[in-house]
Amino acid sequence: MSLLVTGSIGIDKVVTPFGAKENILGGSALYFSWAAVHFCKVYLVGVVGEDFPSEFDFVFVHPNIDARGLERRKGSKTFRWAGRYDQTMNEATTTAVDLNVLIEKSPVIPAEYAQSRVVFLAATHPDLQMQLLSQVHKPKLVISDTRDLWIKNHRAELMKSLKKIDGLVLNDFEARLLTEKVNLVSALQQIRKLLKPGGPRLVVIKKGEHGCLAAYDDSLFAMPAYPTEKVVDPTGAGDSFAGGLLGYMTAQKRWSPVIFKQAVAAGTIMASFTIEDFSLEALRRANRRTIGSRMREFRKMVAHGLV
Amino acid sequence: MSLLVTGSIGIDKVVTPFGAKENILGGSALYFSWAAVHFCKVYLVGVVGEDFPSEFDFVFVHPNIDARGLERRKGSKTFRWAGRYDQTMNEATTTAVDLNVLIEKSPVIPAEYAQSRVVFLAATHPDLQMQLLSQVHKPKLVISDTRDLWIKNHRAELMKSLKKIDGLVLNDFEARLLTEKVNLVSALQQIRKLLKPGGPRLVVIKKGEHGCLAAYDDSLFAMPAYPTEKVVDPTGAGDSFAGGLLGYMTAQKRWSPVIFKQAVAAGTIMASFTIEDFSLEALRRANRRTIGSRMREFRKMVAHGLV
Repeated sequence: MSLLVTGSIGIDKVVTPFGAKENILGGSALYFSWAAVHFCKVYLVGVVGEDFPSEFDFVFVHPNIDARGLERRKGSKTFRWAGRYDQTMNEATTTAVDLNVLIEKSPVIPAEYAQSRVVFLAATHPDLQMQLLSQVHKPKLVISDTRDLWIKNHRAELMKSLKKIDGLVLNDFEARLLTEKVNLVSALQQIRKLLKPGGPRLVVIKKGEHGCLAAYDDSLFAMPAYPTEKVVDPTGAGDSFAGGLLGYMTAQKRWSPVIFKQAVAAGTIMASFTIEDFSLEALRRANRRTIGSRMREFRKMVAHGLV
Repeated sequence: MSLLVTGSIGIDKVVTPFGAKENILGGSALYFSWAAVHFCKVYLVGVVGEDFPSEFDFVFVHPNIDARGLERRKGSKTFRWAGRYDQTMNEATTTAVDLNVLIEKSPVIPAEYAQSRVVFLAATHPDLQMQLLSQVHKPKLVISDTRDLWIKNHRAELMKSLKKIDGLVLNDFEARLLTEKVNLVSALQQIRKLLKPGGPRLVVIKKGEHGCLAAYDDSLFAMPAYPTEKVVDPTGAGDSFAGGLLGYMTAQKRWSPVIFKQAVAAGTIMASFTIEDFSLEALRRANRRTIGSRMREFRKMVAHGLV
């Protein structure tokens, strides 16, 4: 029951209608990990530069985070990202990005992680995702994320990589870009066919405040987002969603469409915490009680009375 | 157990990426009625001009449609609307509109309809909605729809009318316009407070392909749309939704948040039929078997495994 995540660890600057924050923690691997720790042990793989502030080291310390896969690279600089959200709080506009350590050589996956059962490859160059995956020994479930950049400029490599993984989590804009279909059900059906033959073929198309469309093999469903007035900073919502989703999946012995639906609900709830505050603040404040309570509320709200 | 609807009956011209159709049946009252007939008897109130083609008279003939409230006005012309949808199949762009009979004197509600238990006032001038409502004797549930035109240009009259009704069904754009809130949960909460004090206060904010956000008193929930690849013409989806919703409500002895949620599912399913073809074609083809089957599929898809 182990979950490996490869992704970015960064220092962010974020401007939303609720304020501006500089030098705050971010990065896909951190959001993913702090969402997943509530469900299972997380094996973190990522690189920071020697400039990574020691006051942020707490983020690698959690009973359910194994950070032996964290590399602090001498002579390198940590990934930095700056973004801005308008009133609608939908997609961020990237205002500055310094990839730094992310475009140097990729991290090495520790031998102790090689037996991981579930793997999440956060969005990066598809060749790099595959190179990381090749260091894991026969994982049972491999899910990746991607971005418009890779869809637009590295389509061939991306298509090749999809044939080797069991699932893809992406947003509606990316799904339309990847499939050239406007209808999201059509897009989802097409994405299923791009994935590894014989695997469970999981697809989640995230639609932000509108929830998601998802499929486990040919079992398709839609789920709303957790309805909330408290949206302070959407950064990391997608990675927190993936963390809750795969944390929940990893904690189960067997997988099925119903387990997957519950996992999507878990991802939805973890994202709902993340957006309530800047950086990892609200996600880090979440605990077994608050998560359990919101999960029950959400599942009841969506389903009670319909079956 | 009677449901009264007041709304338009029109001749439409529609262009979608799937084709163009002229001289087809449309209008809120027709879509509403043909969705509601599957659940209860519908008392139709509307006016057409003397130009209304007799080959369209079949639309008033159904075991569950009482059309004594239909007026064929001598010397007047039927409402005509033309609209176009782009690839995304979201909002229609109105390309032409002839209000004709809709801006003449309003229809009279037959005395036989005055005892209706549930009333739906399709979108029109709020004063007209109230004038129609005044002809009904103590209905148990009154729901209305509105449009950006009335929100922008007749806000005071609209606000006054909302104080006399139990529920409002509107789309996300209209909800934001009405409340000046971007967050739809906040918008919904504000709309609840605008409705008749002491009533059940039902609000549905429709989001097209993204489903809806709804509340029965303080019981709030979100529901996805029925996921489908088959979207030919979205015209009438909102009125069919309202027809399914209120038809289902009318068929129940008592109302509760759970009954309302089931009613929203019924509305969702009726809308999913409407969009599959032009005009009322797919809605008229729907029957007890196909509706029941899709309703069970949808409710299971949304809810199975979550409670």
